Amino acid sequence: MPNIKAKKIVVDTLGEPKIPIPDQLRPLLSEVGEVNLYVSEEILEPGEKGRYYVFEEAGPKEKIYFDPSKSKCAIVTCGGLCPGINDVIRSIVMEAHHQYKVAATIGIKYGLQGFLPKYGHNVYELTPENVSNIHEFGGTILGSSRGHQPPEEIVDALERMNINILFMIGGDGTMKAASAIWQEIKKRQMKISVVGIPKTIDNDIYFVPRSFGFDTAVSKAIEAIRCAHTEATGAPNGIGMVKLMGRESGFIACEATLAQKDVNVVLIPEQPFELDGPKGLLAYLKKRILDRGHCVIVVAEGAGQDLVRKELKQNNKEIPVDASGNPILGDICGLLREKIKEYFQEQNINITLKFIDPSYIIRSVPANANDGVYCQFLGQYAVHAAMAGKTNMVVTKLMEKYVYLPLSLVTKKRRKVNTNSSYYKAVLASTGQPHTFIND
Amino acid sequence: MPNIKAKKIVVDTLGEPKIPIPDQLRPLLSEVGEVNLYVSEEILEPGEKGRYYVFEEAGPKEKIYFDPSKSKCAIVTCGGLCPGINDVIRSIVMEAHHQYKVAATIGIKYGLQGFLPKYGHNVYELTPENVSNIHEFGGTILGSSRGHQPPEEIVDALERMNINILFMIGGDGTMKAASAIWQEIKKRQMKISVVGIPKTIDNDIYFVPRSFGFDTAVSKAIEAIRCAHTEATGAPNGIGMVKLMGRESGFIACEATLAQKDVNVVLIPEQPFELDGPKGLLAYLKKRILDRGHCVIVVAEGAGQDLVRKELKQNNKEIPVDASGNPILGDICGLLREKIKEYFQEQNINITLKFIDPSYIIRSVPANANDGVYCQFLGQYAVHAAMAGKTNMVVTKLMEKYVYLPLSLVTKKRRKVNTNSSYYKAVLASTGQPHTFIND
Amino acid sequence: MPNIKAKKIVVDTLGEPKIPIPDQLRPLLSEVGEVNLYVSEEILEPGEKGRYYVFEEAGPKEKIYFDPSKSKCAIVTCGGLCPGINDVIRSIVMEAHHQYKVAATIGIKYGLQGFLPKYGHNVYELTPENVSNIHEFGGTILGSSRGHQPPEEIVDALERMNINILFMIGGDGTMKAASAIWQEIKKRQMKISVVGIPKTIDNDIYFVPRSFGFDTAVSKAIEAIRCAHTEATGAPNGIGMVKLMGRESGFIACEATLAQKDVNVVLIPEQPFELDGPKGLLAYLKKRILDRGHCVIVVAEGAGQDLVRKELKQNNKEIPVDASGNPILGDICGLLREKIKEYFQEQNINITLKFIDPSYIIRSVPANANDGVYCQFLGQYAVHAAMAGKTNMVVTKLMEKYVYLPLSLVTKKRRKVNTNSSYYKAVLASTGQPHTFIND
Amino acid sequence: MPNIKAKKIVVDTLGEPKIPIPDQLRPLLSEVGEVNLYVSEEILEPGEKGRYYVFEEAGPKEKIYFDPSKSKCAIVTCGGLCPGINDVIRSIVMEAHHQYKVAATIGIKYGLQGFLPKYGHNVYELTPENVSNIHEFGGTILGSSRGHQPPEEIVDALERMNINILFMIGGDGTMKAASAIWQEIKKRQMKISVVGIPKTIDNDIYFVPRSFGFDTAVSKAIEAIRCAHTEATGAPNGIGMVKLMGRESGFIACEATLAQKDVNVVLIPEQPFELDGPKGLLAYLKKRILDRGHCVIVVAEGAGQDLVRKELKQNNKEIPVDASGNPILGDICGLLREKIKEYFQEQNINITLKFIDPSYIIRSVPANANDGVYCQFLGQYAVHAAMAGKTNMVVTKLMEKYVYLPLSLVTKKRRKVNTNSSYYKAVLASTGQPHTFIND
Repeated sequence: MPNIKAKKIVVDTLGEPKIPIPDQLRPLLSEVGEVNLYVSEEILEPGEKGRYYVFEEAGPKEKIYFDPSKSKCAIVTCGGLCPGINDVIRSIVMEAHHQYKVAATIGIKYGLQGFLPKYGHNVYELTPENVSNIHEFGGTILGSSRGHQPPEEIVDALERMNINILFMIGGDGTMKAASAIWQEIKKRQMKISVVGIPKTIDNDIYFVPRSFGFDTAVSKAIEAIRCAHTEATGAPNGIGMVKLMGRESGFIACEATLAQKDVNVVLIPEQPFELDGPKGLLAYLKKRILDRGHCVIVVAEGAGQDLVRKELKQNNKEIPVDASGNPILGDICGLLREKIKEYFQEQNINITLKFIDPSYIIRSVPANANDGVYCQFLGQYAVHAAMAGKTNMVVTKLMEKYVYLPLSLVTKKRRKVNTNSSYYKAVLASTGQPHTFIND
Repeated sequence: MPNIKAKKIVVDTLGEPKIPIPDQLRPLLSEVGEVNLYVSEEILEPGEKGRYYVFEEAGPKEKIYFDPSKSKCAIVTCGGLCPGINDVIRSIVMEAHHQYKVAATIGIKYGLQGFLPKYGHNVYELTPENVSNIHEFGGTILGSSRGHQPPEEIVDALERMNINILFMIGGDGTMKAASAIWQEIKKRQMKISVVGIPKTIDNDIYFVPRSFGFDTAVSKAIEAIRCAHTEATGAPNGIGMVKLMGRESGFIACEATLAQKDVNVVLIPEQPFELDGPKGLLAYLKKRILDRGHCVIVVAEGAGQDLVRKELKQNNKEIPVDASGNPILGDICGLLREKIKEYFQEQNINITLKFIDPSYIIRSVPANANDGVYCQFLGQYAVHAAMAGKTNMVVTKLMEKYVYLPLSLVTKKRRKVNTNSSYYKAVLASTGQPHTFIND
Repeated sequence: MPNIKAKKIVVDTLGEPKIPIPDQLRPLLSEVGEVNLYVSEEILEPGEKGRYYVFEEAGPKEKIYFDPSKSKCAIVTCGGLCPGINDVIRSIVMEAHHQYKVAATIGIKYGLQGFLPKYGHNVYELTPENVSNIHEFGGTILGSSRGHQPPEEIVDALERMNINILFMIGGDGTMKAASAIWQEIKKRQMKISVVGIPKTIDNDIYFVPRSFGFDTAVSKAIEAIRCAHTEATGAPNGIGMVKLMGRESGFIACEATLAQKDVNVVLIPEQPFELDGPKGLLAYLKKRILDRGHCVIVVAEGAGQDLVRKELKQNNKEIPVDASGNPILGDICGLLREKIKEYFQEQNINITLKFIDPSYIIRSVPANANDGVYCQFLGQYAVHAAMAGKTNMVVTKLMEKYVYLPLSLVTKKRRKVNTNSSYYKAVLASTGQPHTFIND
Repeated sequence: MPNIKAKKIVVDTLGEPKIPIPDQLRPLLSEVGEVNLYVSEEILEPGEKGRYYVFEEAGPKEKIYFDPSKSKCAIVTCGGLCPGINDVIRSIVMEAHHQYKVAATIGIKYGLQGFLPKYGHNVYELTPENVSNIHEFGGTILGSSRGHQPPEEIVDALERMNINILFMIGGDGTMKAASAIWQEIKKRQMKISVVGIPKTIDNDIYFVPRSFGFDTAVSKAIEAIRCAHTEATGAPNGIGMVKLMGRESGFIACEATLAQKDVNVVLIPEQPFELDGPKGLLAYLKKRILDRGHCVIVVAEGAGQDLVRKELKQNNKEIPVDASGNPILGDICGLLREKIKEYFQEQNINITLKFIDPSYIIRSVPANANDGVYCQFLGQYAVHAAMAGKTNMVVTKLMEKYVYLPLSLVTKKRRKVNTNSSYYKAVLASTGQPHTFIND
């Protein structure tokens, strides 16, 4: 490895690992150590420059921290569904059982609620037998829920249940909760490892180039786009509109646009747009409809929120917040459909607008082969990390390498589509739309 | 064939066929004649008894009416999309070209609009080359539209374009339009054959046990139901609701319920239901949620229209009508979601309700193998009928036999699910729901 | 029902049913009785004429024969895999448990072997819990095997295990075994009901228009044909050959040919063909290759067996027999590939021949929606029949009606493609091939 | 970019680009230049160490070399089929036409044969209209062929047809042919750019971490493995064997094993194995069958060639060679099936062995979403490179960056699975098999 001046990224540990790794894992040991990787600007926030970092490479180590025969793992899944959660659960259970022979792995039902007695959810013992087929099904066999729960009560539960390793599969909010739980564990001077596996169908986690389930989601999204195209071309002046996931980041919308070449307009949260005026979206749609007779529009759910807010304000309404504290997104597609219909009526052009919202059909399907392999590695490396006493961290894949990152790093910012990147420009070139729908 | 006293069903002809069928079709001639079939009550209207009929069996005949070398066919597709339209178009074009060597087949763009110069849609010559792959795509390559057009102007167009065979692919409204066009043709004493191929994703055409595209639609519908189940089991007290096609007949909802065994409640137009009261839907949902922790509800779009109308009335609103004159259905799923949320809030039970509306994803996909074969036969028999001078009729499959039926018969009534049939009872048994949600 | 002189088909019963059906099944009772159906020549043997029969309609009856609380069912699956076996198992278990509350249903492992202690296979209790998801997987959870086992030992096992209802899912050989088992039961004057559910991916059971799994098999077969077409058109003078199931009957080959319009030659067991001579297959292939540059050939595995036998004879070899006594089919595709290569080499034409044998990929997949619904009904009606004391019979669907047929009827002959039917002629018309490849 | 001492990789150019890039491409310009990437050992040959290189980053440049209005491109596709070829063709045609407005792009039919008049294949003009849907189909619309053609005659053809840009899509042999063609062009001092897009379903091109179509191939491969598992578990002592692509490199076998967790033994070319002896494959299979009752074996077609050669030698046979000079692989699966059957017969254990060879079904399908996006970028960057006058090079993606590589580099060696890597060890861990089947 050449000598590059690069920032070193280190994760926390519970203490020095002193127990020899189980024999059967010895063949898997490699000279795993640090890895020097260039993190390009695409994975970072727009505006940040790419740079080199030294990461801890994931993998089994000579010595582990926990005695497997006395270890008890817990897995909890939080937030919205995403293809591949069951694959990660399965991988953790199989690795912990077959490779490390840990005493037990239990599943916490319905997210963080499952730790709190007041919800009355039973825990669920996870064995190789009862997880062997779960990757053939979408969703999470553990169930999930949204919303905060007090870290103190969660750590109480971990103590009560004698858990020493906690795997948390969830999004940004869950990774922050993992951090809080770890702080509480540290305060109590307990030896519990907290390892996160970042889950976000929006693919918007900082330092995570591709979150699990994203590839599957794009595959399903293009089925909806194909149908929108069929509908749009099937009617005179047909407009097909597809709403895709993407609260703050338009990755699914962009990638699906590249994959299904029928998209004529794509709208994402990172790129504001105007409806009116000569360079606005509506004038562009008119031109497209008059020229080509049909149009397919893909809208990330978080696009154009300023427009929705303006509209709500005009009607003196507030933007509500969900149980996890995420602002409930304004209905940009509802607004667009209304405005488009109004506009073409004014222009005396009969259009046929068909709207497709495939969201749950995208996120509830089983992982495809690509995501399946990815999830298996994420689960295995999460177990290696935990057994080695690593904590307050996540596993991810960066530039084809699996590495460990501190929770503090991945929760610092949200990854977004860089609208100046050649990637985004390729998306625009694929649709043929102008760089912006802004009048000046 | 035994001697049964059965009603004979005869279709109109333009005159006596005198031209020998092309030689290459001779091997396909069989002793095609009449066929005596028992039409069971399931294919008729609820209340009607099954009975025997004698039908004209579809197929090529010794003599044909039109001279192929002077024949010009037109195909028009009307109404909503449905899997298999392109298969039917392809089959007609191939059969007319390869087997009969007709002079030309042209495609009318965007439904009946395409006949009227004022819309400015060009016609489109259909050749074996340009239709060879179209069955791999959903929708209709000709485009479609809704709404009435004056039969006189359509017949003017047929005259102007020198068409002597018109194939009309469409639903109930289109079959009625076909009838009106035929009346106008007869009035003018012209020799133009009008042959319909009934299209309805709702599977609700009288005397047509299974309309093309239905099997494909059910296959796609179960993907949505599977996702609804995943969502429902993925959250505490999860309710997954899927809206399926079925304006007046719940066939897709019923068949999909049988096919995907996760449905717990199915609601169809034929079976009214109540929300409130001890036997109402809401009380049943509460019991189900408390007992099992989740519930999957499948709703045909035309279910519970009395409830929607009552609600609209309370808010002093009218039910609007679309371009084809079909009443725009009230949003039963919107009403259900609202009422369910209100009810569980009152009951102090936290639920998570996920709603999936897959409609365009169901109707815009290509036909599956089963429908593909069916569409090919429909197209071929439509050509045989037309070349033989049959008119004012449709092709369909009854009890494994392809037969010709008069337009007047299939437009007389709408086929519905018989809620007293063993079929519907099997559907209910599959969900476990009671026979009705009516209080008494 | 009109008065038709029709042959009545009656199945055996163990005795008069005297026990009232469980209350929850009462709503499912309908005026189930006899049904008068025209059985067309397509379902019979070539040569037989269609005629009317009176059948016993399947369904629950007022009185049942067995006391559910004392009933113990067994399910056994025999012969090759077929999509939908797990669906039938699931349906039987669910119906027996939920609707009749039978004491237990057990699964016999690995076909008839599972009854014989010497094989050492354990039985497997089938519960709603352990069968709830099995329809999502292909194959049979019970395992299967081929080959005869002595009926006496099987009835010994039924006695030992206290089974009073035996469901046998299998092909022609299994239905004959069911008959033999029933004869032994009768001889011992025992009260055990034997109910068959005919399984054959070849769709060749007499009086069974469409066996379960056939629709799924065709759907998968066309994927292979599509690939063969891609390969054939992807190389100069490309020939793509696909081997499909069909030992004695070419139904899958024919139906797949209709469904995937790229097939240029289809060869089935029912239609002998010659390789050489001006009207032989090879001369036709040459013409096709020179005219069009590619050719797709679909071969049912049992086609051209006379050619293979002739070839074997010339090499002084014998045709072997498998464990079930079925003659192991000669490798017609091997012979064809050899002869085609030789022939074109002689003709100095370079060809590229790609061979696809998708068999296990076709038969091992889960049932599609259509077959899933069908299997569920088959399972339910099998349970109704058995509980009512019917025996020595099978359940099937004839002309959209589920009926009971004696084992003796369905095992009498094998159903084949009628090469004079309009169906087969439509298949030939789809490929463009001549009616035969016979020189005179 | 930090200062790392890294080897610089430069590609050839025809001369200095002086023509301004078309205006509409200006927004796509970015500060594209060099990129410093760590090439890990996985992408290189086993034994080589990972190291840093400086690559030319792909993308449009300020100045181009060819005047688009006078440019004529040709595309040729060679070798075996692979998912995504049509996507690459489409992307090149669209980019050349819409972005650069090149005068024409023509397609050469059936590989290098298409250049030589003696084969009589016509060329085919490629337009946006006739390529717009081709990505929905597998294979190559241009056809392909194997085998060498004289570079002189090819360059004669390029001259005759006035081609100044040649895109070659093909495998290792094709890239070597591209090199030879370039040498001939240089000798004649012509200005023709030769740009390769490496195609290999085996994923075995040096310096190319993932070749296009690989992801799709793995997705299809797991369907076959799933069926093999169903077959293996469906029979007593069932063995399911799946043959996958991989002449010299077992990437598909390894990745599919990771993706479909039912594989119990995987055999690849990189890891020799023995059949006999206590540590040989056969003894392991026996243990597995006795312990678990079934076994799924995945075999890369190039595995165990030493065993096949030994067997051939014992029978005094030669290993033949195909038209492209590739040795025709010995039939390892045939050998394995024979040896396994013999062995278990000797051991008096009845087994059921089912063999699946899905090869053409894997390689002839359309690209999935992931490969579709990849192919689109490959095509676009190939056009950018060619228009800028780059030549004797290929486009590839390395560590998430698209870069240009000299043909000499990628044809130097063949990429193989490193059997000491943690990747391969994860594959073995997934099957549970020992590191080798070698006795000592």
